[in-house]
Amino acid sequence: MRECTRVHLKHDAEREEGLIRKKVAALAGVSEATVSRVLSGGGAVKEETAKRVIEAAQQLNYVPSALAQRFALRKSGNLGVILPMLPKVNLFSTYYFSEVLSGIGMTAKQRGYDLLLLFREPHEPRDYANLFRTQKIDGCVILGAQDVPSERAALTELQEGGYPFCLVNQRFEGEAYNSVDADQQAGSRDAARHLLTQGFRSICFLNGPSVYSNSQDRLQGYRDALEEAGLAFDPVQVLTGNYSRKSGYLQAKAVAALVRERKIDAVIAANDRMAIGLLQGLKELGIRVGDEVALIGCDDSDLVRMTDPPLTSIRVPFFEIGCEAASRLLDLVTNAEGSGSFDVKLPVKLIERASSAP
Amino acid sequence: MRECTRVHLKHDAEREEGLIRKKVAALAGVSEATVSRVLSGGGAVKEETAKRVIEAAQQLNYVPSALAQRFALRKSGNLGVILPMLPKVNLFSTYYFSEVLSGIGMTAKQRGYDLLLLFREPHEPRDYANLFRTQKIDGCVILGAQDVPSERAALTELQEGGYPFCLVNQRFEGEAYNSVDADQQAGSRDAARHLLTQGFRSICFLNGPSVYSNSQDRLQGYRDALEEAGLAFDPVQVLTGNYSRKSGYLQAKAVAALVRERKIDAVIAANDRMAIGLLQGLKELGIRVGDEVALIGCDDSDLVRMTDPPLTSIRVPFFEIGCEAASRLLDLVTNAEGSGSFDVKLPVKLIERASSAP
Repeated sequence: MRECTRVHLKHDAEREEGLIRKKVAALAGVSEATVSRVLSGGGAVKEETAKRVIEAAQQLNYVPSALAQRFALRKSGNLGVILPMLPKVNLFSTYYFSEVLSGIGMTAKQRGYDLLLLFREPHEPRDYANLFRTQKIDGCVILGAQDVPSERAALTELQEGGYPFCLVNQRFEGEAYNSVDADQQAGSRDAARHLLTQGFRSICFLNGPSVYSNSQDRLQGYRDALEEAGLAFDPVQVLTGNYSRKSGYLQAKAVAALVRERKIDAVIAANDRMAIGLLQGLKELGIRVGDEVALIGCDDSDLVRMTDPPLTSIRVPFFEIGCEAASRLLDLVTNAEGSGSFDVKLPVKLIERASSAP
Repeated sequence: MRECTRVHLKHDAEREEGLIRKKVAALAGVSEATVSRVLSGGGAVKEETAKRVIEAAQQLNYVPSALAQRFALRKSGNLGVILPMLPKVNLFSTYYFSEVLSGIGMTAKQRGYDLLLLFREPHEPRDYANLFRTQKIDGCVILGAQDVPSERAALTELQEGGYPFCLVNQRFEGEAYNSVDADQQAGSRDAARHLLTQGFRSICFLNGPSVYSNSQDRLQGYRDALEEAGLAFDPVQVLTGNYSRKSGYLQAKAVAALVRERKIDAVIAANDRMAIGLLQGLKELGIRVGDEVALIGCDDSDLVRMTDPPLTSIRVPFFEIGCEAASRLLDLVTNAEGSGSFDVKLPVKLIERASSAP
């Protein structure tokens, strides 16, 4: 009975579509075949003619059924990735973004989705929900989210609208958003433990901005290790950069002063880029890393093997984080069996190199 | 008069939309307000209700006017980038793709476009035109295109359909497709000239596959320099890899044999990745680059500064190539003043380092 109604309606709809296509053709002063050709995007039609057909279709609110169907299914076939536009940074050339995006891209491709990259300027409004409303995307992974009010508002809107999204390497205190992260706290705890085992006693921590939960987690791991070893936490030994190479370089003077005053004998940097900048700055100031001061980075990016000395670093499985985020999110989008909200933490691993030898 | 007709039709269309929305509401057994809420994607509606509305809309071929308008304008707001899916390669982590994509991404963002990445598997059908027909993209940049019949067929279809596209670093003999490239021929000519000036006499050329026009151009530049210097071209001195680091590494034995038989005293590799692989392989075989044999790469990627010895390389402005491709293509898409078909070649520059010292 239901099937009958559906077929009947389908015939009605087809007849209606034929009628309106006739109206479009008449209004544009062309044949119905031309209307079909223009609106299906196939075959050669003069630009002037195409323009007339499109105007007529617009005036009559006519949309071919193929598009109507796609609309009704509410699927774009696109997985969105929101990522920050950083001034003067070639985003894809940074180890972090390139690895995470490779993981997301490969997984999306395997699942038959295309990747829509949505660059967000630092001070642009964050209207993520609109990307779903306008059907640009079926789900989205958010990279580089910051714990600021505008971000929280945008995420609340997504959550309340039931739009599937996933945060990567970011957590919002008090909110149970889907997320995939690495165990950053364990990472810097292991780094500090390793330094203490090697005989270092006064460890400086060069952190990133606290709007990133990863920065807070890393600082906590460092504090945990100090506490375990019965050492006091000294805020003077915590410096802050912005995860750029330059910001590490700019802290070299402060670090050099602490080293010369024998207030520190080791540094943990919250990412490799800052560690590499710091290494360069210390070299210019005549301080030998691996000799006068130990240094550990975080990320284990390809560059730390090539520095002099090679840097000990915490390997974070960014590619796998990207795969996991895309895979879990697409399970949600397609409503796959067993899919539901998730909060994944992947393990990290300390890779020892010359920069932290006793 | 024309304006009058338009207004009249607009009112007609609005009334018609109201009528059909009423029908959808009746069929789904919900209020008109609920239909609006579901189809605009705003507000909370039970999933079961939303599903009924969508089914009803689908049966009646109803599409809200906002979407209809977007359809009529035929704009997705997306710039497509077609790029190859290489097995075991994190695409975004390769210098070439990351730089070109950064340029494309920054330009698209500045022009208000989002970036849709379309990964193509090596043996997948290349139905590029369908991306336009289904309005996923308004224009597309094609990276890693190969001169093979299936690619030619797909590009011919795009060209005949009048769909705006741009090739990057690839040319098709006999076709006037829009493209942005670097002057690769000048690059390897300059590299060979430089080696000859430094006193080297027998230069081996490690090329990439000939399905890429860049490989052909680079080989031609090498041959030009030999001819200028009155030296014979010897096919035995041309080796082929596939632009991967491993393929350079695998040629180390052949190169080492040529060096030991004093048949060559220098190598030009068609990209840095192969040069770095070769350098590593030669080191393992006990051949000292920069001493027993000179080596020049191509791309001037960030890694060549950090090898031992640092590699002379040809700087190719990949980021600028990405910017130029996106910018010219979006001019075409938006029909900007002065836009038209284009074939741009950006200059390259030899950067001297220790690996090619006499």
